Amino acid sequence: MIKEAVFHQPKSHYAYAYDKETLHIRIRTKRNDMDNVYVVHGDKYRFTPEYIQTTKMEKFASDSLFDYYQAAVKPEYRRFAYAFRLESGKETLYYNEVGFQKEGAQSRSGIGMLESPSGMFEFPFLNPVDVNNPPDWVKNAVFYQIFPERFANGDPSLNPPGTEEWTHDAEPTRDNFFGGDLQGVIDNLGYLEELGITCIYFTPFFEAKSNHKYDTIDYLKVDPQFGDNEKAKELVREARKRGIKVMLDAVFNHSGYYFPPFQDVLKNGRKSRFANWFHLREEEVVTEPQPNYDTFGFVASMPKLNTENREVKAYLLEVARYWVEDVGVDGWRLDVANEVDHQFWREFRDVVKKANPEAYILGEIWHNSMAWLGGDQFDAVMNYPVTNSILEFFAMKEIDAEAFMGRLDAIQVAYPKQVNESAFNLLDSHDTPRLLTIAEGDKDRMKLAATFQLTYTGAPCIYYGDEIGMAGGNDPGCRAPMIWDEEHQDRDLFDFYKNLIQLRKEHRALRDGTFRFLSAGKGNHYVAYERTDGNSRFVFLLNGSDEEITINLTGLGKGTFVNVEGNERFQVKRSKLKVTAGANSALILKEQ
Amino acid sequence: MIKEAVFHQPKSHYAYAYDKETLHIRIRTKRNDMDNVYVVHGDKYRFTPEYIQTTKMEKFASDSLFDYYQAAVKPEYRRFAYAFRLESGKETLYYNEVGFQKEGAQSRSGIGMLESPSGMFEFPFLNPVDVNNPPDWVKNAVFYQIFPERFANGDPSLNPPGTEEWTHDAEPTRDNFFGGDLQGVIDNLGYLEELGITCIYFTPFFEAKSNHKYDTIDYLKVDPQFGDNEKAKELVREARKRGIKVMLDAVFNHSGYYFPPFQDVLKNGRKSRFANWFHLREEEVVTEPQPNYDTFGFVASMPKLNTENREVKAYLLEVARYWVEDVGVDGWRLDVANEVDHQFWREFRDVVKKANPEAYILGEIWHNSMAWLGGDQFDAVMNYPVTNSILEFFAMKEIDAEAFMGRLDAIQVAYPKQVNESAFNLLDSHDTPRLLTIAEGDKDRMKLAATFQLTYTGAPCIYYGDEIGMAGGNDPGCRAPMIWDEEHQDRDLFDFYKNLIQLRKEHRALRDGTFRFLSAGKGNHYVAYERTDGNSRFVFLLNGSDEEITINLTGLGKGTFVNVEGNERFQVKRSKLKVTAGANSALILKEQ
Repeated sequence: MIKEAVFHQPKSHYAYAYDKETLHIRIRTKRNDMDNVYVVHGDKYRFTPEYIQTTKMEKFASDSLFDYYQAAVKPEYRRFAYAFRLESGKETLYYNEVGFQKEGAQSRSGIGMLESPSGMFEFPFLNPVDVNNPPDWVKNAVFYQIFPERFANGDPSLNPPGTEEWTHDAEPTRDNFFGGDLQGVIDNLGYLEELGITCIYFTPFFEAKSNHKYDTIDYLKVDPQFGDNEKAKELVREARKRGIKVMLDAVFNHSGYYFPPFQDVLKNGRKSRFANWFHLREEEVVTEPQPNYDTFGFVASMPKLNTENREVKAYLLEVARYWVEDVGVDGWRLDVANEVDHQFWREFRDVVKKANPEAYILGEIWHNSMAWLGGDQFDAVMNYPVTNSILEFFAMKEIDAEAFMGRLDAIQVAYPKQVNESAFNLLDSHDTPRLLTIAEGDKDRMKLAATFQLTYTGAPCIYYGDEIGMAGGNDPGCRAPMIWDEEHQDRDLFDFYKNLIQLRKEHRALRDGTFRFLSAGKGNHYVAYERTDGNSRFVFLLNGSDEEITINLTGLGKGTFVNVEGNERFQVKRSKLKVTAGANSALILKEQ
Repeated sequence: MIKEAVFHQPKSHYAYAYDKETLHIRIRTKRNDMDNVYVVHGDKYRFTPEYIQTTKMEKFASDSLFDYYQAAVKPEYRRFAYAFRLESGKETLYYNEVGFQKEGAQSRSGIGMLESPSGMFEFPFLNPVDVNNPPDWVKNAVFYQIFPERFANGDPSLNPPGTEEWTHDAEPTRDNFFGGDLQGVIDNLGYLEELGITCIYFTPFFEAKSNHKYDTIDYLKVDPQFGDNEKAKELVREARKRGIKVMLDAVFNHSGYYFPPFQDVLKNGRKSRFANWFHLREEEVVTEPQPNYDTFGFVASMPKLNTENREVKAYLLEVARYWVEDVGVDGWRLDVANEVDHQFWREFRDVVKKANPEAYILGEIWHNSMAWLGGDQFDAVMNYPVTNSILEFFAMKEIDAEAFMGRLDAIQVAYPKQVNESAFNLLDSHDTPRLLTIAEGDKDRMKLAATFQLTYTGAPCIYYGDEIGMAGGNDPGCRAPMIWDEEHQDRDLFDFYKNLIQLRKEHRALRDGTFRFLSAGKGNHYVAYERTDGNSRFVFLLNGSDEEITINLTGLGKGTFVNVEGNERFQVKRSKLKVTAGANSALILKEQ
């Protein structure tokens, strides 16, 4: 047994409350080192042999170095003391908070280690208020990201001066305008409904100078180019009628250059009554040659807000409340979320969940985010590690199946299950090249990536226009006006997305069912996986290689499958399921 | 290199803010596996070779399986992206959020992994409000635990009926009373001052039925047997004059049986207006044969309070505020802290720190407590793992020096440094046998344990009477009335404690200096360690074996030491310091 590989941390993603009754307990071991892993547990106040239970743990994830085991348990009195029993070959060890112990080892008090709770790991009490409990609708959602200036122009009277013509080959630049607005979105809700979208994620539409509106001037006001607050309310109402929710972008880390308090500070320096709204370093405030105040990155025009300041906090929390309570939006995506203090986000959560307990709080964090996911801050985060894994495996063909599995499984281990179920799985955005462009224009690769995205754990998000074949490189290339001329839309791709979305929505197994890799071999460019809940079971073979492949899948028990086209049957024979997928294509099987 | 042993978790006890400017970064490796470990770091928004820095990490802890390295860094713009460089024999690997990489490995974008921040670990922003910043006085404090009914009887007019006589051999039972009170404490503040105490920790003195007062009736009132609230204010005032602070015991997990809201619930069941103050399971409330409501342990007379309820919260938070703001106490010790919800403790912290930013918030938790120590809940916890390690090594001689070191070093790794500096290091209490009894009456063993306690990281606490040689087994044995008759006091022991306390108070090195084991060998029953800050350096040899031992200590550089008695000089020669300690005794050296 490789003891150095064994890892557990109590009260973390290795031991957390999944819901008000259920704890998930996890442990990491060296890959392929264990024959059996158990969690041995009891109530610390009644830690006697007749009450101690042993629960087998299931391997639920693997990477190149480790296996990860998990068990779900429901402690009767909500208190939980536990150790692990590790069986590897002829060796059996117990592992508790004090370390490794042989079976029958005596503790300080002269009794066996399982006869006293003192050295055990503990989940002391499952208090419901502490459970990270993302709104249920999120795991069932299909998101669609809209960059408001570029989705649709529904009210030309709002066009800013110099608005350019909206054509299928219009060229976006960093500064130009095409006249997209909220009326344009309202006009096209039917299109989104047809595609199967259930929530729109808007990049900012508050008053700002730029076309991207990340340089906020007034957080409480729709930019006049897009409409007004009444139009936003109408949009929310009309979307709701079609079963579509709305999520906004909260840029609270920094304001824009023309934010009135910052303008006052530029003028009056530390004498400004808004001096403490920012992080100033000297009496006078200068932007050149270097800003002498904290900024986003090193960008002088994006002054970092002092979210520890009482007034700033009150202002931003009112913003958070207003859009949810008075306008009716269903969630906030938090820009640069990890640079704002935790204390602010805790108060933000209180305000938002009080306004609407079903509101979704989504952090933009590119790195490990466990510090924000303990139940006191965010419901979930933008799932960039999943983004990168899917892109590198399917779209760019840079990693093999084993690495792909390892990286995805690492995310499953890194967060509680409910967080992964509610994670925001995007493949591209206004900040990256478009999916088709990342896939070097290869539509087959793009489809494989999207197939995986739409059948994996977590809520998928489609960046506007991807579904009709829009391409484009990094900003500004990825921000072209939506192509509405059907002659220039890829309708085959639209149908592909529509059908997959429908499949996901029809089967709970594809949303919060179990996910399990069936094949993810070293050097391979194909993967097979299973998704199942109590009611249905799917097997996927996604072949990103340039050759047809045929493999025998094992571990599926018994069963008969049909492909989703419904024209071929596949039978598990002698515990094997033989499946074939053409070069760069997918086979999707559903159990009969 | 044993990759499986390498562990790091961003934004955890492996990467935390030590103060408003400083990050501590840690990594775990297989014991004795690495030649050099570095953290390679930069600002994610300026991640170019000329700005990337490399900082050597120091080994700061070890156990039987692992070494632990740490570096302190001050990121100029408070943002920190990092990876580790691990050198083991001929092998050099980088370790970042994505995994292990060879030097010069290319990333997805075709550039070296150190040329892009995308795969790095991150500490995104050091926001001051998020730093766990325990009050400075705590690490300089010497605590003294008083069980109010048993310390001193200063006002016989308050004696409850049946009060027994206060003699040096009076026998405590679970139910008897001796008449201890607050006046008794006031009368003996001079004694505590002479001993060197700087903070009294009181077990509960609020109104309750029992002699231990853990069965609270009124959290806002001093028990009439002990005095009244004015007397408490006088005590705080008089103690402060002598440089002594006061910490109270908050029993918020459960109330007492006679707590009026619980009495109302017993009478009216779910119809009681206090029904939601508790966790009831049925209409009618019964205590027999099993309580049908949540309790502390399985004790029917200790009903668990519903700290998620708004009224309960308001009541207990007012209690928290009142004693700090109106009475002037300096801290709260939180009973059964880990069974109360985190959300409650966050609000508790807000209230207490607002009343007095220098108040100490100390959790009673017997197990890993990192989930409460992120800066949003407790300043520190009662350090039971240190308690147990010291007792098992010095007092009971059950573990060897290597295990002792491993367990203590594990605690240094388990929490941020500022938490360990402010931890509450007790050796016994009203809930355990007394130290002298645990040491089987062997005063030498007791002295070794106390010497370690008083020269280790964290604030020591002495249980009343230990310092004059009181013995006693588990409750009620450990709760005898304080012996005030000097003829029955062990004055030698008193002087021993007094001198060690004075030494600790005189030298910052013994409070928040560096701690390092110099000798902690397998099978040994002695340890040597060094404590140093910029100004002074100490070397300790604590010999718990039954034979005199002489060893050569290495790694001390140059220097001349004298023993604290001042009658012998010790010189480092050829990098070695030769030291001798008699059986069951200590050698304490101070550098000249």
